[in-house]
Amino acid sequence: MKAIAVEPGAGEPVLVEKPRPEPSSGEALVRTLYVGVDGTDHEVIAGHHGQPPDGEDRLVLGHEAVGIVEDSNGTDLEEGEFVVPTVRREPNGANEYFERGEPDMAPDGQYAERGIVGAHGFMAEYFTSPAEYLVPIPERLAPLGFLVEPISITEKAVEHAVASRSAFEWEPESALVLGNGSLGLITLAMFETVLDIDRTYCLGRRDRPHPTIDLIEDLGSTYVDSRETPVPEIPAVHESADLVYEATGYAKHAFETVDALAPNGVGVLLGVPEPWEFDVDGGRLHRELVLHNKALLGTVNSHRGHFESAVDTLSQLPESFTDDLVTGVYGLEEFEAAFETGDDIIKTAVEFGSA
Amino acid sequence: MKAIAVEPGAGEPVLVEKPRPEPSSGEALVRTLYVGVDGTDHEVIAGHHGQPPDGEDRLVLGHEAVGIVEDSNGTDLEEGEFVVPTVRREPNGANEYFERGEPDMAPDGQYAERGIVGAHGFMAEYFTSPAEYLVPIPERLAPLGFLVEPISITEKAVEHAVASRSAFEWEPESALVLGNGSLGLITLAMFETVLDIDRTYCLGRRDRPHPTIDLIEDLGSTYVDSRETPVPEIPAVHESADLVYEATGYAKHAFETVDALAPNGVGVLLGVPEPWEFDVDGGRLHRELVLHNKALLGTVNSHRGHFESAVDTLSQLPESFTDDLVTGVYGLEEFEAAFETGDDIIKTAVEFGSA
Repeated sequence: MKAIAVEPGAGEPVLVEKPRPEPSSGEALVRTLYVGVDGTDHEVIAGHHGQPPDGEDRLVLGHEAVGIVEDSNGTDLEEGEFVVPTVRREPNGANEYFERGEPDMAPDGQYAERGIVGAHGFMAEYFTSPAEYLVPIPERLAPLGFLVEPISITEKAVEHAVASRSAFEWEPESALVLGNGSLGLITLAMFETVLDIDRTYCLGRRDRPHPTIDLIEDLGSTYVDSRETPVPEIPAVHESADLVYEATGYAKHAFETVDALAPNGVGVLLGVPEPWEFDVDGGRLHRELVLHNKALLGTVNSHRGHFESAVDTLSQLPESFTDDLVTGVYGLEEFEAAFETGDDIIKTAVEFGSA
Repeated sequence: MKAIAVEPGAGEPVLVEKPRPEPSSGEALVRTLYVGVDGTDHEVIAGHHGQPPDGEDRLVLGHEAVGIVEDSNGTDLEEGEFVVPTVRREPNGANEYFERGEPDMAPDGQYAERGIVGAHGFMAEYFTSPAEYLVPIPERLAPLGFLVEPISITEKAVEHAVASRSAFEWEPESALVLGNGSLGLITLAMFETVLDIDRTYCLGRRDRPHPTIDLIEDLGSTYVDSRETPVPEIPAVHESADLVYEATGYAKHAFETVDALAPNGVGVLLGVPEPWEFDVDGGRLHRELVLHNKALLGTVNSHRGHFESAVDTLSQLPESFTDDLVTGVYGLEEFEAAFETGDDIIKTAVEFGSA
């Protein structure tokens, strides 16, 4: 079978031939339909993140997949069922996090991530997976099933944010998304249409006209150009935000989030920056966190429950939004196009087969 | 009646004569028994924090009180009942935070704090209060009733910390208290004896022998001298902490908390520092928050529910601990002694009358 793999740092993925995998006991064999591409894939390709399984030079890419059960292999799944795989797997034997269904809470070294670190991804014509990590999705949603994984990331972040404010009455009326990449835009759409937050803002650094700015405004949200309005000035220019979602990986934003938050607000941090020293007014930030009961939460990955919520969320996202978000789906013969970046490209996927 | 008041910035409180207050409708008249002294009082005395009611030069001090209902004035309280007052009051008319019983979540300007900002405190022979802000306490606990307010601060902080980790399985086994002032020590005792956290650590910067170090070790906790083991080195020298409680007001500790935390841990920040710029490795801290699902929460003040929990907690604190914690209770004729600071002084109170 064909697969898309990369030698980390090589700078570009290649098409390789691999044997079709055989499902072990408890695993199903899945025929791949679509696999999305995101920033993490680009970091793996560039060699900034991730690594192949032990003893291998190349890593099969892909962690945002949807497929169809080819061989249920005695599991509870049905052949022909559409499924989305979760990403984390036991590294070498199970641990308490996997045992209780919370692999997203496992610390470094206690997980592999398919397509990212220590385990091959889903960019292959077939893949196998333990049935418990395959989440059913209705057939009609399958063409956008590669959006379930990124949506699940925000399901988790929002769950943690809401939990952190559950000791008092908290109904967010304003939300700010830092970053207008695909995850930021998906999150903005969730805030606008599923969570029904009254007023939302999305920060970027792009000139008009730009398709992501059109998309932000079509959602009924307000675009904030960080070159004109830095994050700490957003409360004065627009308003403070009950909920801030950081999806830039720009470390100063993590600290500026404290200033952008309304009293009793929460900022969820999703970006994964490299070390970077800079000056902060740590006294003022500390004081502001305390006197206004503010919270900052880091969150990474997601578990099966978040994938299940994400399938439901995907069914609620307006078609006009997903039409504009997904700027290209490419067959295996032109898979390179799915990895191109550019001003007109928002979200892409590779098509491995049809339903 | 006699009261202890201060002209903010004057540097020392004085005994003044004031008329005994008359309870308005819905208020009870309370005869004061004891009022504790804490760091906030010292900041008010030094003029770093707080202000008298509008149009007055002097502020009656005291926000950690216990008293006995002298005149129930038609409220549901009973005369002779022992009560502890909460601290925040409506500033000028109610607002949503007070209406829903969460004055602790009110932002700046939407509250007065008795004995601190905009309202006289409880360091007077009598005070009045709306009955809803008077929390009953058993007679046998009344001699330590001035500890209920500081305990309530930690009740809230812990409630928010636990809520922030409620989206997953979280059972803290290790906790680190930054600061061995009276609030830090009270919190440490709560962690050890009420929350039953397996292993606790308390950071200070004092030489042995020192009464607070004895107190820490008598609780079964480990003293960490910050001059030998800076906060970021605590995980290597001792262990990382599932829960960090910052009670120093030293802004660098707020950021160092991220390094002291175990994966999926939460740091609660209580200190209120002045502005202070310094360098941080913001990239590394941001990354660490995200990849290990860490949380930082600011928290201030407490509401009636926290005071009720605090009464229960006070009943569970070992007498050996409170005996060592309270280093002096002084009558009105020697009230100045309660405001002295020094190496042998941990927690003091002024006695206004006997039960």
